[in-house]
Amino acid sequence: MGADELLLSGEEFEARLRQIGAERYHNLHRFHKRLHSGECTYPEIQAWALNRYYYQAMIPIKDATVLTRMQDAEDRRQWRKRIEDHDGLHPGDGGIERWLKLTDSLGFPRDYVQSTRGILPATRFAVEAYVEFCRTRSLLEAVASSLTELFSPTIISERVAGMLAHYDFVSSETLAYFSQRPVQAKRDSDFALDYVKKHAKTRAEQDLVCAALEFKCSVLWAQLDALWSAYVDGAIPPGAWVPGQGIGYATPPSGKVQAA
Amino acid sequence: MGADELLLSGEEFEARLRQIGAERYHNLHRFHKRLHSGECTYPEIQAWALNRYYYQAMIPIKDATVLTRMQDAEDRRQWRKRIEDHDGLHPGDGGIERWLKLTDSLGFPRDYVQSTRGILPATRFAVEAYVEFCRTRSLLEAVASSLTELFSPTIISERVAGMLAHYDFVSSETLAYFSQRPVQAKRDSDFALDYVKKHAKTRAEQDLVCAALEFKCSVLWAQLDALWSAYVDGAIPPGAWVPGQGIGYATPPSGKVQAA
Repeated sequence: MGADELLLSGEEFEARLRQIGAERYHNLHRFHKRLHSGECTYPEIQAWALNRYYYQAMIPIKDATVLTRMQDAEDRRQWRKRIEDHDGLHPGDGGIERWLKLTDSLGFPRDYVQSTRGILPATRFAVEAYVEFCRTRSLLEAVASSLTELFSPTIISERVAGMLAHYDFVSSETLAYFSQRPVQAKRDSDFALDYVKKHAKTRAEQDLVCAALEFKCSVLWAQLDALWSAYVDGAIPPGAWVPGQGIGYATPPSGKVQAA
Repeated sequence: MGADELLLSGEEFEARLRQIGAERYHNLHRFHKRLHSGECTYPEIQAWALNRYYYQAMIPIKDATVLTRMQDAEDRRQWRKRIEDHDGLHPGDGGIERWLKLTDSLGFPRDYVQSTRGILPATRFAVEAYVEFCRTRSLLEAVASSLTELFSPTIISERVAGMLAHYDFVSSETLAYFSQRPVQAKRDSDFALDYVKKHAKTRAEQDLVCAALEFKCSVLWAQLDALWSAYVDGAIPPGAWVPGQGIGYATPPSGKVQAA
């Protein structure tokens, strides 16, 4: 069979990418289900917010890594928006700042959160693997690894609606991070999807794009696995944040403690 | 207080390093206890061997990374032994080959093991974090991160005695990897301990050495956390090896299946 026959059409290629999301995106993870259905304890939500801060904080570093590899000014202009979204246009603005409003509301001092010294090692390893992937693989694969955003509007709406309904100590204000993400993610994933369709010119390249998306799904999945193991199953690894030991509010601000 | 007062004596410094091991080394992990006490199921042992292969296989890459950074020929001569131990002196020799004898005995095809496509993403992220640490941190920290070998003779003797006593399908031959490790690890950790004592000339450098050892403990710990989550707790992440689905013997060679 020749290379032309193996090459997926744009439609087939996109369908394959969406299939990867349908099978591997972290909306399928038991921790996500627990979080949005109201079953998470207060410390589990604290741990989720604390750990995910590191992911949020490294996104602009990841995107700057991709930016260093783009030869085309228009591509860079488009990609630069991702950094602007996370870092904001002035102090107090941007996605990272909005994430800190969530950790603020859970009683974590900002310098503790930003030091990342309480996060799970597995969180650190997964996030750093993502940055490293974008540094060392082809630009095509680096762009492709962002394609999980194709699936994020759904998980965000589930998460926000579920969390607002089930947890007294969560408000639209503390979840402000998510309010802007669906529009940004749509714009970014439109760009990335067009990019991989245009630049993956062989079946081998299309396969690399798919593998990059699988890799990224595993980066997200591994973070929830680690949260479950440490804070649901209770096997907190040495050195990671321990609930109720003086860092972070021991009970939600409203005083209402969730059932375990 | 001046820098001289803060500096730990050689004895205090070594005691602090040994204390880190006493608190964070993975002999304290519940998966290790389960493994050596005979409570692991056969698929759990298969998963352990399959995943740890990746760690073993990357050790010479990690050590070559350290070698690229050593300016001193005598240091390189000493460090080179680590690569020789793992890669051997001829085909069929060396630690990686001995590890493959273990995965052979559990029914895994070598090309499957060596492809690493069935390992847990968290295993990959942890191991790659170790290599990356040795590439990007100071040489002092890279050498220090090997100091977990100070504690390995104990865990190896526990593991080998426990596994031989409790699992019919395990023999001295399939555990041959471990037979040579205590002597090698003693030689290597003697070198590394002398090295960090000699080269950490300020308290700040001593602290970096301690942090490097903590980091390495977390690399080992995270691997066992991931094994527990996937194969003891049963939450196997998408894409990882699934027991009994055609890869690896479904039952031990002796035909005797361990109690779950």
